[in-house]
Amino acid sequence: MVFDRAGNPPPRAGQERPPGCSGFCTVAAAGALTRVGPVGDDFPDWLLQATAGGCWFRLDPRGRGFFGIGLSGRWGGRLLIGEDCEEAETMGKVLILYDSATGNTARMAELVAEGVSEIAGTELRLRDLAAATADDVHWCDGLAVGSPTNMGVLSWKMKRFWDETMGPHWMKVDGKIACAFSSSGGWGGGSEMACLSLLTVLINFGFLVFGVTDYAGKLTTAHYGAIAVRQPREEEVQAACRLLGRRLAEWVALLIDRRDEENPCSKPRRAVE
Amino acid sequence: MVFDRAGNPPPRAGQERPPGCSGFCTVAAAGALTRVGPVGDDFPDWLLQATAGGCWFRLDPRGRGFFGIGLSGRWGGRLLIGEDCEEAETMGKVLILYDSATGNTARMAELVAEGVSEIAGTELRLRDLAAATADDVHWCDGLAVGSPTNMGVLSWKMKRFWDETMGPHWMKVDGKIACAFSSSGGWGGGSEMACLSLLTVLINFGFLVFGVTDYAGKLTTAHYGAIAVRQPREEEVQAACRLLGRRLAEWVALLIDRRDEENPCSKPRRAVE
Amino acid sequence: MVFDRAGNPPPRAGQERPPGCSGFCTVAAAGALTRVGPVGDDFPDWLLQATAGGCWFRLDPRGRGFFGIGLSGRWGGRLLIGEDCEEAETMGKVLILYDSATGNTARMAELVAEGVSEIAGTELRLRDLAAATADDVHWCDGLAVGSPTNMGVLSWKMKRFWDETMGPHWMKVDGKIACAFSSSGGWGGGSEMACLSLLTVLINFGFLVFGVTDYAGKLTTAHYGAIAVRQPREEEVQAACRLLGRRLAEWVALLIDRRDEENPCSKPRRAVE
Amino acid sequence: MVFDRAGNPPPRAGQERPPGCSGFCTVAAAGALTRVGPVGDDFPDWLLQATAGGCWFRLDPRGRGFFGIGLSGRWGGRLLIGEDCEEAETMGKVLILYDSATGNTARMAELVAEGVSEIAGTELRLRDLAAATADDVHWCDGLAVGSPTNMGVLSWKMKRFWDETMGPHWMKVDGKIACAFSSSGGWGGGSEMACLSLLTVLINFGFLVFGVTDYAGKLTTAHYGAIAVRQPREEEVQAACRLLGRRLAEWVALLIDRRDEENPCSKPRRAVE
Repeated sequence: MVFDRAGNPPPRAGQERPPGCSGFCTVAAAGALTRVGPVGDDFPDWLLQATAGGCWFRLDPRGRGFFGIGLSGRWGGRLLIGEDCEEAETMGKVLILYDSATGNTARMAELVAEGVSEIAGTELRLRDLAAATADDVHWCDGLAVGSPTNMGVLSWKMKRFWDETMGPHWMKVDGKIACAFSSSGGWGGGSEMACLSLLTVLINFGFLVFGVTDYAGKLTTAHYGAIAVRQPREEEVQAACRLLGRRLAEWVALLIDRRDEENPCSKPRRAVE
Repeated sequence: MVFDRAGNPPPRAGQERPPGCSGFCTVAAAGALTRVGPVGDDFPDWLLQATAGGCWFRLDPRGRGFFGIGLSGRWGGRLLIGEDCEEAETMGKVLILYDSATGNTARMAELVAEGVSEIAGTELRLRDLAAATADDVHWCDGLAVGSPTNMGVLSWKMKRFWDETMGPHWMKVDGKIACAFSSSGGWGGGSEMACLSLLTVLINFGFLVFGVTDYAGKLTTAHYGAIAVRQPREEEVQAACRLLGRRLAEWVALLIDRRDEENPCSKPRRAVE
Repeated sequence: MVFDRAGNPPPRAGQERPPGCSGFCTVAAAGALTRVGPVGDDFPDWLLQATAGGCWFRLDPRGRGFFGIGLSGRWGGRLLIGEDCEEAETMGKVLILYDSATGNTARMAELVAEGVSEIAGTELRLRDLAAATADDVHWCDGLAVGSPTNMGVLSWKMKRFWDETMGPHWMKVDGKIACAFSSSGGWGGGSEMACLSLLTVLINFGFLVFGVTDYAGKLTTAHYGAIAVRQPREEEVQAACRLLGRRLAEWVALLIDRRDEENPCSKPRRAVE
Repeated sequence: MVFDRAGNPPPRAGQERPPGCSGFCTVAAAGALTRVGPVGDDFPDWLLQATAGGCWFRLDPRGRGFFGIGLSGRWGGRLLIGEDCEEAETMGKVLILYDSATGNTARMAELVAEGVSEIAGTELRLRDLAAATADDVHWCDGLAVGSPTNMGVLSWKMKRFWDETMGPHWMKVDGKIACAFSSSGGWGGGSEMACLSLLTVLINFGFLVFGVTDYAGKLTTAHYGAIAVRQPREEEVQAACRLLGRRLAEWVALLIDRRDEENPCSKPRRAVE
């Protein structure tokens, strides 16, 4: 347990939020502390409101993410230490990786990104396939992968990325949370099949894949990923893209960052009517 | 941070295990305490053997589950306190649900169960479909579902379970970790396709599904679930079943129970040769 | 080559239709004659209106099907002769088999049936699952199978039909032409996945399965079967159902009944725009 | 009806085979004759054993395929006419198209080719992807497509072929008979899933896809295509490859070339034991 510089005791969850803090961060394991590197003077003034098992956090003013009290983050690597206290980064890292020939899947990716952003404390990389590297996949905790529906299957370029770029990293990236999205030329044109092929690749890499049970509107959902016909123009289709991104960020927050408050099962959701 | 009655400092992970405790439990959020049901006089002495971010635990001698220090377990509700020492629920709950016409899939289920048991701190229910209830699914944190390969798809009885028994529980069981296994009449006989149909159902329920990247032997793996031809007699096939169960328990331990030490990515694994 | 009783030469395709005949039937193999069951006295006058490689036909007035000249129909068994004129069975037999809980898939089935009916010379059985028998499957040359999308997979009742009712007939019905259709609760709700599970079952039975390349409207097709959200109300969705049925009847006409004129590749079709 | 130059009457099926002829060819429609172009003196000595609805045929000694009596071939275009008689080409054209990184899938392709060759009267092209063109696909009546199992899906190179090379030919090649095969790194390694992705592409192109019901050995079949683990060394795996090729040639012979005698349903087959 750490105290602030003034020696104040840490808050407890449910207590009032300390000034400058934007939320309460659950923290996993004290034991992981030994894996943390020192941060030095970067955070001399950090608000040291900590409590056993968690901490209050605030945004890093330099835009490098969220930081928290130094109890631990999972896998330790993101844990940063201040002068008088420890801070743990707890931000879930989400990659949205897409290939797009016409801009339709790219537009879906933006909408998925909007959904991811609804969950505070999530760091996002939105990557066109042409700019993506294996490091992006290593970096992320969860990923949404989008491709145009080409002959009912992911595009050959997206496949090449996983075959060639990621092939040497197979067995080294297991355990991420993953989902899919795709735009096809027509309803019934294979977009769910293309999502299936993406999920097939993602499962092969040891990822845990999911679809969304909730409805994004009266007649639209994303049970096997978000789908669109050409440009995602319809409000419900856009909502389904956002819902997919939001759910991805929620699973990452809950399962990887261990933030119980983001468990989607505890939130209101829209069922089929 | 809490201290024991004698004022002893809490153990740290890696320290010696206190008497009566069976393991170290990582704990998520102090804040979750408020979600814990009233404990009342049952646990007057609970402030013991704790450490920030976790606690040592032991089995509840009253058989009511695992109990832990009042930091929190996930979803809080299971948190209870023992007499002299605190126990946190850490047990991952794994359901193995199978339908079997000839006994072959039942035999696979036993092997999967053996794999689950390799991960300490995992509670297991092995359920023949005929005896399974919706409560079994609600209960579990992760599940492996097995079916004979019937016409390349899960058996109609297994499908009926998810359509009829579980249908009313749809949207109420999201977020579990799930995988599949199946026995067919021959190599090339559709066992992977049957696993795919199982995964399709499981994704529909909002579960996060996975396959195993590792090899169980020189020529056998379980990338989309464990498969067998008829009776799982071959050593490698048996190993693949165990591997699937073990991986399921590992993901549950890591992602649901937040036991970093069970992260399979940190363990030696067998790659393709 | 055979001549009529009066010694008239046979008609050629393109010639005027003989009285009492309703169409020109292409006939496959004279050699197949030997496989035809004994006709006996029922058809004493059968050597009429024939031409090498085909014959004029008419409906059997006794309601026993189509009858034709003694050249042969495929598999011979259906060859029968009328009184004054020979008739060859040319009718493709199409089964539409559906399960429907809410009436939505049943409505799709009707639309598929409308499409089948667009191809003259196709006999149709529209069967609710509750009334279907193994004989229906044996009877047909091609079949469209529809199911509600239940958890992304065909309904358990439809699966039970193929597991239990058809199981004993496996290996006895190979070579039929087959396709799928399904209604789900929402776009993105798994209807293509359900079609995939239907196709998986149909492939297992040795059928040749297909989807439709053509577009049924500006934004709708049926690449893996026809899909609908709930009631198929939208004009394009209805058109896709009809298109699927029509294509099924066309493939049956071309591939099974060997009616070149029904080759869909020779007809105008609507491509993606 | 045509006669040979010596004025001999045509044989009937079931009659003895005329000298120089290797089989009996069923012919579809006299009416199609009008679509046939003249061949002139190319085949002056052709054996003119014809009968209504079919003809005896022999191999073209110049290696240009099979030729038969001039009643008709389907789609007419292959029909060639001799001086005194007509000859129809009736040969089924089968393409085996494969991508192979290690030689394993290439070896499977050879075995599939062996199976194709078991059905007399089938013309075969065995094409490595690197040498394949869109013309190969246009040319064939049926095709078997093989790919290594890469991340559970066809290889990116094979996908590129269908996306890029064949994309412009979409809607122009419907109606071919197609199947799949794949070699993976291990049992349970996704080879059926890779076949599924191949079938998904093939269905998208309007092909009719199939698997084999028969068993190739006691414990091996090819319900969704032929699969192998690495090099197809096991006798049963090799038999399954051959069985797939044979079945492809049989369906092409029956459905496209209308040779009833090649209907696999009329032949002895090996069921599951």
